[in-house]
Amino acid sequence: MANMEFMKQFSAFLHQKGFVWGPSPEIYGGLAGFYTYGPLGKLLKNHVESAIREVFHKNEFWEVECPTVMQRIVWEASGHLGGFTDPLIKCTKCKGDFRVDVLIGDAIGNDIPVGKMSDVELLKLIDEKDIKCPNCKSPLERKILKHNLMMKTTIGTDVEAYNRPETATTTYLPFPNYVNYFREKLPFAVFQIGKAYRNEISPRQHILRMREFTQAEGQIFLFPGQKNEFEKYEKTKNKKLPLWPHKSWSMNKPLEEISLKDAVESGMLKNKAYAWSLHLAYELFTNMGIPKDRLRLRQHDPDEKAFYADDAWDLEVKLNSFGWFECCGIHDRTDYDLKQHEKFSGEKLQARDANNVVMTPHILEIAFGTDRPTYALLDIFYEYKEKEDGKSKFNIPYKLSPVKVAIFPLMKKDGLAEKAEEVHEMLAKHFQCKYDEAGSIGRRYLREDEAGTAFCVTIDYDSLNKEDSTLADVTIRDRDSAKQARVRITELVDTIGKLIKEEIKIKDLVKGE
Amino acid sequence: MANMEFMKQFSAFLHQKGFVWGPSPEIYGGLAGFYTYGPLGKLLKNHVESAIREVFHKNEFWEVECPTVMQRIVWEASGHLGGFTDPLIKCTKCKGDFRVDVLIGDAIGNDIPVGKMSDVELLKLIDEKDIKCPNCKSPLERKILKHNLMMKTTIGTDVEAYNRPETATTTYLPFPNYVNYFREKLPFAVFQIGKAYRNEISPRQHILRMREFTQAEGQIFLFPGQKNEFEKYEKTKNKKLPLWPHKSWSMNKPLEEISLKDAVESGMLKNKAYAWSLHLAYELFTNMGIPKDRLRLRQHDPDEKAFYADDAWDLEVKLNSFGWFECCGIHDRTDYDLKQHEKFSGEKLQARDANNVVMTPHILEIAFGTDRPTYALLDIFYEYKEKEDGKSKFNIPYKLSPVKVAIFPLMKKDGLAEKAEEVHEMLAKHFQCKYDEAGSIGRRYLREDEAGTAFCVTIDYDSLNKEDSTLADVTIRDRDSAKQARVRITELVDTIGKLIKEEIKIKDLVKGE
Repeated sequence: MANMEFMKQFSAFLHQKGFVWGPSPEIYGGLAGFYTYGPLGKLLKNHVESAIREVFHKNEFWEVECPTVMQRIVWEASGHLGGFTDPLIKCTKCKGDFRVDVLIGDAIGNDIPVGKMSDVELLKLIDEKDIKCPNCKSPLERKILKHNLMMKTTIGTDVEAYNRPETATTTYLPFPNYVNYFREKLPFAVFQIGKAYRNEISPRQHILRMREFTQAEGQIFLFPGQKNEFEKYEKTKNKKLPLWPHKSWSMNKPLEEISLKDAVESGMLKNKAYAWSLHLAYELFTNMGIPKDRLRLRQHDPDEKAFYADDAWDLEVKLNSFGWFECCGIHDRTDYDLKQHEKFSGEKLQARDANNVVMTPHILEIAFGTDRPTYALLDIFYEYKEKEDGKSKFNIPYKLSPVKVAIFPLMKKDGLAEKAEEVHEMLAKHFQCKYDEAGSIGRRYLREDEAGTAFCVTIDYDSLNKEDSTLADVTIRDRDSAKQARVRITELVDTIGKLIKEEIKIKDLVKGE
Repeated sequence: MANMEFMKQFSAFLHQKGFVWGPSPEIYGGLAGFYTYGPLGKLLKNHVESAIREVFHKNEFWEVECPTVMQRIVWEASGHLGGFTDPLIKCTKCKGDFRVDVLIGDAIGNDIPVGKMSDVELLKLIDEKDIKCPNCKSPLERKILKHNLMMKTTIGTDVEAYNRPETATTTYLPFPNYVNYFREKLPFAVFQIGKAYRNEISPRQHILRMREFTQAEGQIFLFPGQKNEFEKYEKTKNKKLPLWPHKSWSMNKPLEEISLKDAVESGMLKNKAYAWSLHLAYELFTNMGIPKDRLRLRQHDPDEKAFYADDAWDLEVKLNSFGWFECCGIHDRTDYDLKQHEKFSGEKLQARDANNVVMTPHILEIAFGTDRPTYALLDIFYEYKEKEDGKSKFNIPYKLSPVKVAIFPLMKKDGLAEKAEEVHEMLAKHFQCKYDEAGSIGRRYLREDEAGTAFCVTIDYDSLNKEDSTLADVTIRDRDSAKQARVRITELVDTIGKLIKEEIKIKDLVKGE
């Protein structure tokens, strides 16, 4: 359940400070499940996406960008056209639409596993518990509809097509091109970061569950025989992961830090390539800046797992707003997808292994997104303060700060603003900067603390008045300690670079400390 | 007209090398106007987008990310629902759909200005010139339809909505949030990079005209009185631009390099803010790597201009495939958009100027995309060679190379591959790298020349055998000169960094030169 008190403050903070606005478009009343990233939110989301690219590139995944709209047959093959539905119930009077599992959860709590119940059982439960329309309290229709989650459109004058409900399917389709690009040398790996669309019935949970969202996924194509002959595993096998297998969590046992090697040898993880994929997911999320004590890897319940998946674990992040929350799934999708698209397209989707045997590769998938990690960083590093205790603050690690340096002239007169603009121009070549000359310095500091800005640089009379301009200096103020130090303008780029990387601390610059 | 011979080689090259694949999804026969960026194309497109962000950030534009799907009323207000159509004609027999202006252009050339003709006139021309269905040669229907270019969909169970036909409208809607974020201090500027969708009738021209494409646009919000009191103009006013006003090109006069100041003072450009916006467009495209002699700014014909635009110029890029091609439009959109959305939403979209007068700001727009510049870089720097003259090559400037460094072990034995992987790991922390151990070194060089890879590093026995490992060295090979030099592994990161930035040249490293 959501921490409603926290959510209320938090979403107001995100809106007010220019992180996330919505539901969008606000001037037209908003459409549920659509949000806008404001200037600070977009910078943060870009950092998240850069961190993802960094890890994927390092691990030899190659990025692709596939269309977000594809014709009907693609989604027949993928199974989304038939199976990608949510149960929907309508009010007899106000005609409101409700997602049945959410409706029941809101009315009587989440103890009953409604996900596994039939329509008849669901209707019986609604009856027994006397659940009414949450809007107008009228009775609900005695019929459960299947609401398809895809957004349908038309291409040309008559080609039925859909906004993609996931990026992964579109990533699989250029398979013959990959085989050519990688010169038939498996395993090979690609990734995609892009929009996907799900017409959820009544999305809530802010940017954690949107109708339009940004997915990111890495896909490893390999032969089944390569799952236990996986070169990259060898360098990683002694690393530990916070693993929570089904047999532990279902018996209320705590999670353990287990090395990949121990997990593979004990049979907890099925093979080396899959173990390495779990580690990659963990590396992706730690590189995005999510603290390790907020991460765990939880194995799916056998009932929870997609029918085609050979094994499935989720990476979960502990949020202040919603507790442990699924942010990434690692799936062994076997040869299911390529076989389906081979069947529907009539094109062979195979490759030749080292023994010259032509066969369909398997796919290991690390599937996540960039909205949830962005939300998680905001949720985790946002520090709420009651008015009497000071201002709320955004304690994001410096290297992820949306704005790295804010530049202030002490006053607008005597050439201070001109000097400040000069310093701004110099710093803006190296860091994301912001120039601000409005209000007292104290107020400007507060604004930047709320924005998560790492450092503030103030230009004062000593920044101008030296006879030798190489001695001119400014005040740097550190967000976390609120400490200040004087630094020469000539050394500013270098010093700020080191401060952001945390190679030095502000106290190292303060004389006498 | 397209250079068809060039296009044929070029698109085969883009496909074969992993730059662009399509129309996508190829295994299902492809859908016209949808393409996939393969690994090298996506890296290049990412460079283009980084170069755009760099220029916008430097000029204090703040990025936002708005939804790509919005409800009907937004597109009523923007004018897209009524007016965003192409003339379509159907074949009486095969039912093929044709865009009337393209059909006529293909049949009789582009000398007749069909864009300005009425439906009656168009039908008469088709009659007179006896234009038939290009597919089956049957007569065309005697009726011209208005084909709306928007992709319609449904949100929830019954909200009519559309994939956005442009990003700009979605950028305007959070206006009240901008006023709050920028604390009512105008001018302020935002930008957006994201997908837009146009259901073109029969798109051709590869990724220059897609049904799904990536737009990029910067929007400056300012009061009319600020158009000639525009601070940023002062620093730029002596810079020269290749300007081609309507009165020059319509009289076949050549373009001239004119300073912003001269253009403003002579009345060629209407005001300082608009002049600065033209310069920003030019800066964006040169920063993306488009050579200056391939750029010009051409003023719209008064008839060509959108009805709401006060002035409009296009930035055009000279392509090998299609000649001068529009890649960016700079428009003074006045207060048209904010007034429209104010009218349709009922929300006030105004701000307070320095004299406390509440009014609707104007908007200056720099509207372009990232597919066309990516295409332009490929088109301009692709060098075709007949088979007997050697291999085709991609001569992209090093700083834009999709892959910066390819790492090769001379052979797979004697620990060379292991050493090469070690070097790869080291370099991959700093540069986009690729590891390749297949085929002769010569073949591997050729592959990288075609991919535009800046440098190749070969690990041989001297990379291993030194008694002092700090003396171990490798061969670096430069793409453009094909020259090679020996560099110590300990100095590799630093040396490659300088080579990419062109601070040094490979010949500076060759002993005795």
